[in-house]
Amino acid sequence: MGGDLAPHATVAGALHAIQELDAAHTIQLVGRTAVIQETLDSLLQGELAAALPHRGRLQIVEAPDVIEMNDKPTSALRKKPNSSMVVGLRMQTEDQSDAFVSAGSTGAQMAASTVLLRLHEGLTRPAISTLFPTARQPIVVLDSGANVDCSADELVQFARLGVVYAEDLLGRKDPVVGLLSIGEEEEKGNAVTKEAYKLLQSAGINFQGNVEGRDLPMGGSDRGPVDVVVCDGFVGNVLLKFYEAVAPMIAGMLAASGVDHDQLQMAFRNLDYSAHGGAPLLGVRGISIICHGKSSPRAIKDAIRVAAQAVETRMDENIGRRLAAAPAGTA
Amino acid sequence: MGGDLAPHATVAGALHAIQELDAAHTIQLVGRTAVIQETLDSLLQGELAAALPHRGRLQIVEAPDVIEMNDKPTSALRKKPNSSMVVGLRMQTEDQSDAFVSAGSTGAQMAASTVLLRLHEGLTRPAISTLFPTARQPIVVLDSGANVDCSADELVQFARLGVVYAEDLLGRKDPVVGLLSIGEEEEKGNAVTKEAYKLLQSAGINFQGNVEGRDLPMGGSDRGPVDVVVCDGFVGNVLLKFYEAVAPMIAGMLAASGVDHDQLQMAFRNLDYSAHGGAPLLGVRGISIICHGKSSPRAIKDAIRVAAQAVETRMDENIGRRLAAAPAGTA
Repeated sequence: MGGDLAPHATVAGALHAIQELDAAHTIQLVGRTAVIQETLDSLLQGELAAALPHRGRLQIVEAPDVIEMNDKPTSALRKKPNSSMVVGLRMQTEDQSDAFVSAGSTGAQMAASTVLLRLHEGLTRPAISTLFPTARQPIVVLDSGANVDCSADELVQFARLGVVYAEDLLGRKDPVVGLLSIGEEEEKGNAVTKEAYKLLQSAGINFQGNVEGRDLPMGGSDRGPVDVVVCDGFVGNVLLKFYEAVAPMIAGMLAASGVDHDQLQMAFRNLDYSAHGGAPLLGVRGISIICHGKSSPRAIKDAIRVAAQAVETRMDENIGRRLAAAPAGTA
Repeated sequence: MGGDLAPHATVAGALHAIQELDAAHTIQLVGRTAVIQETLDSLLQGELAAALPHRGRLQIVEAPDVIEMNDKPTSALRKKPNSSMVVGLRMQTEDQSDAFVSAGSTGAQMAASTVLLRLHEGLTRPAISTLFPTARQPIVVLDSGANVDCSADELVQFARLGVVYAEDLLGRKDPVVGLLSIGEEEEKGNAVTKEAYKLLQSAGINFQGNVEGRDLPMGGSDRGPVDVVVCDGFVGNVLLKFYEAVAPMIAGMLAASGVDHDQLQMAFRNLDYSAHGGAPLLGVRGISIICHGKSSPRAIKDAIRVAAQAVETRMDENIGRRLAAAPAGTA
């Protein structure tokens, strides 16, 4: 039920996904049964008739409440215990599902995931991890908005979480971690990043040192590519939203100066955030994938694929193991 | 002597500027006389012969020391009292010049400007103000890197400084100020921005409220355009460097997908940071313009124009007046 384009985009995304996923996977559509049923029927009789043979792997789960964007995240949980958010996540705690994907309120999903799935030991907050397209390969940036005032310890935790993301979902070997700052040198940065720099050096991860704003679009610094960039959720969120808006702005400038529309579409395909699917909420015991409120069916499909991949690679267990193996005294 | 392309780019920039500036203006070239003289002669006999009639309005001022990029900013001041940085700024305190422009070490320029020119009353640190190109008109973003850990009071000071910049250098009437945060609502943000939001409401400025990362490339929010965006220097510096790198990255993608080179150059002209000249260091008693280390002659010329405009509009006095007129208890 979540997201600006629901239930059409979410149901259509699920129908795209079910055709691509391994036959062992099923998808549960959680929300108001009547609305979902109607959307499903209409799509299967129309544009997504190709998914009809897979109908048996789709299940509808009733959740009568709907969390609205103006509901306060924490009270929404309490006041709407039968929302698709709460029902969907609770199924994971009851071993009836392996992963949860939503395009609903990010705040409510964070709160519900933290309360229902609970955090891995030693963590204080979950982190939203986002993929940034770059001139090289995509970079995992976290936190992208879950934590606004972060301690140095928390930045180290984000580094560990990001490393497992890069290994399990991107297939990177021994991922390289950069700390976002305002200069390459150890002494550059604010109070928190300077402390985090020291901690990251002995945290048992492949730490490259500080990276700067310019290194993000480039996919790394002159010391080589990076796989994971760590920052607090304030900076990460500002950057993410800035990046999302820069591409359309530049595309507009180019169109105004006469560049061919089809050429533009082709070139900007790699910068299309809706193509990058969901942002895993890392640190919770389980899988919770946050989608953009404006997610297209394709974005939902990609998010479901990411969820399946996280389950198959046992990302959650790997996170638990990596956190437990952290050298003593390094958060 | 400062900058990666000095002395060629700085001297050439001065020769471009002197042709455009009102005849009442003169330019002092501060540095090693022999090197400057040689560069000047070579340019005036070659590519910049058109500037020859204006030669009398250029003066060379001897400053034998050169601050290198690896000199520590504060000790450079003490150890190199005859650097172009110190000599050039001291002339302003002795009424022998009205403004200072440099492409040298930003840290040294900040330190030297603060020590020699001193700050306006009530300020704790100067701020670097940068122009961000947007889909509408350019926005003044400050601080862009002078202050990494800022208090809410300092963000309010930046707002006042930015307002005078927008009035005097961009000709904006009653400039609209936005506070960079991670959501439109007052309660969104980190501890410092939430406190700054409250202070800005009663600071006697045209405060629009929070703006998000996406509002920067757009030149404003759905509540209208903004002229000034306030943030701490950590976030501002990360964003500035990110923005500087995104345009070439996207241009590279477009070129790779076959978009015509000339069309690209034309379209990206407005995003060319070297065209935007210098970043005034606001808050010092005087005019100190910071240029990018890689400044082209055109960027230096633009920075000199900005300096002349700051002098003509009496920006420094206006800043003093605005700070003095701040409502009591609002920083």
